[in-house]
Amino acid sequence: MQLSDDKREDFRSRLSRIEGQVRGVQRMVEEDRYCGDVLNQIHSVQQALKSVERKILRNHLETCLTNAVQSGDDEARQESYDEFMDLLKKRI
Amino acid sequence: MQLSDDKREDFRSRLSRIEGQVRGVQRMVEEDRYCGDVLNQIHSVQQALKSVERKILRNHLETCLTNAVQSGDDEARQESYDEFMDLLKKRI
Amino acid sequence: MQLSDDKREDFRSRLSRIEGQVRGVQRMVEEDRYCGDVLNQIHSVQQALKSVERKILRNHLETCLTNAVQSGDDEARQESYDEFMDLLKKRI
Amino acid sequence: MQLSDDKREDFRSRLSRIEGQVRGVQRMVEEDRYCGDVLNQIHSVQQALKSVERKILRNHLETCLTNAVQSGDDEARQESYDEFMDLLKKRI
Repeated sequence: MQLSDDKREDFRSRLSRIEGQVRGVQRMVEEDRYCGDVLNQIHSVQQALKSVERKILRNHLETCLTNAVQSGDDEARQESYDEFMDLLKKRI
Repeated sequence: MQLSDDKREDFRSRLSRIEGQVRGVQRMVEEDRYCGDVLNQIHSVQQALKSVERKILRNHLETCLTNAVQSGDDEARQESYDEFMDLLKKRI
Repeated sequence: MQLSDDKREDFRSRLSRIEGQVRGVQRMVEEDRYCGDVLNQIHSVQQALKSVERKILRNHLETCLTNAVQSGDDEARQESYDEFMDLLKKRI
Repeated sequence: MQLSDDKREDFRSRLSRIEGQVRGVQRMVEEDRYCGDVLNQIHSVQQALKSVERKILRNHLETCLTNAVQSGDDEARQESYDEFMDLLKKRI
C-alpha cells in the first residue's frame, strides 16, 4: 500500500481499537453474557473492519488506479480496473 | 449464553485466533504490504467472525428456543421466534 | 414449505412487487439514469428479497424445526438444527 | 449512466433473466416447494443482482471517475472519489 504517514497512523489506531473490541467479545463469552449482546458486539467489530476495508479501497483508488489512469497507458489502465474489481469481488 | 464448557473453550480459542489475525493485519499495514493481501486478510477475519456468529446462533436455537418450544407455552414460543429473528435481522 | 394461505398470499404479493422493481431497474437502464439511482433501486430489490428470505426462515422455524423439537426424537431435533444452519450458511 | 450499446444490451438481457428468476421463485412458492430450494433460488437472484452492481460500478470507474482524473482538476477528482465511495458504502 502507498500510505501517507497520517493514513498509516489512522489504520494503526483503528486496528488496535478492533483488537480491543475482539478482546471485549472474549470477555463477554467468559461472563456468559446474553447472546444478543455478544452478537451485537461482533457486529460492531465487523462494521469497524468494513470501514477499514473502505479506506483501503479508497486509498487504492487515489494512488494505484489514479496513477494508472494518469499514465496514459491504456493497457495499464484496463489492468487497474480489473485489479480494483477483483478487490471488490469478494465483498459485493 | 447457556454454554457447555466445551463450547466456551471453543469460542475462547476461536476468538483468540481472531485477535491474532487482527494483529496480523496491523503488521501488514506497518510493512506496507500490497493492499489486495491486506484486504484478503481482513476478509479471513470476517469469515472467522461469521463462523463464531453462526455457532452462537446455533447454540441459541439448541438452548433458549428449544426450551421455549418444549415449555408448551405458546406465548413464550412466539417470543422466542421473534427474538431469534431479531438476532438474524442485522445479518440477513 | 408448509405455508398458511395468508402467508402464501403475502409471499405472492411481495414477489410480484419485486418483479415490478426489477422491471423498474430495466427502465432506468434504458433511460440512462444516473448510476447511483440505478444502484439504489437494485439495493431496494435486494432488501426486499432479504425480507422474503427472513420470512421463509421464520416459517421454517415455526413449522419444521418446531415439529422436530416437539417430536421428542433427539436425532430428528439435531437434524433440524443442522438443516436450519445450512439454510443460514450462505447468508451469514 | 454512460453506457455503450453493447453494455446496455448486456444489462437488458441480465435484468430480463433476473425478472424470469423472480417469477421462478413465485412459481416455487405456489407449488409449495421445499424452503431450502426456494432460498437457493433467491440466493441466485441476489448473486445475479450483485453481478449487475459490479458491472455498473466498473462502468462508473471507466467513465465518470476516469474522466474526472484525466480532467486535471483536483477538486473534480476528489469529488469523484467521494462519489464512488458513496456508491460502495451501502454494499461493503
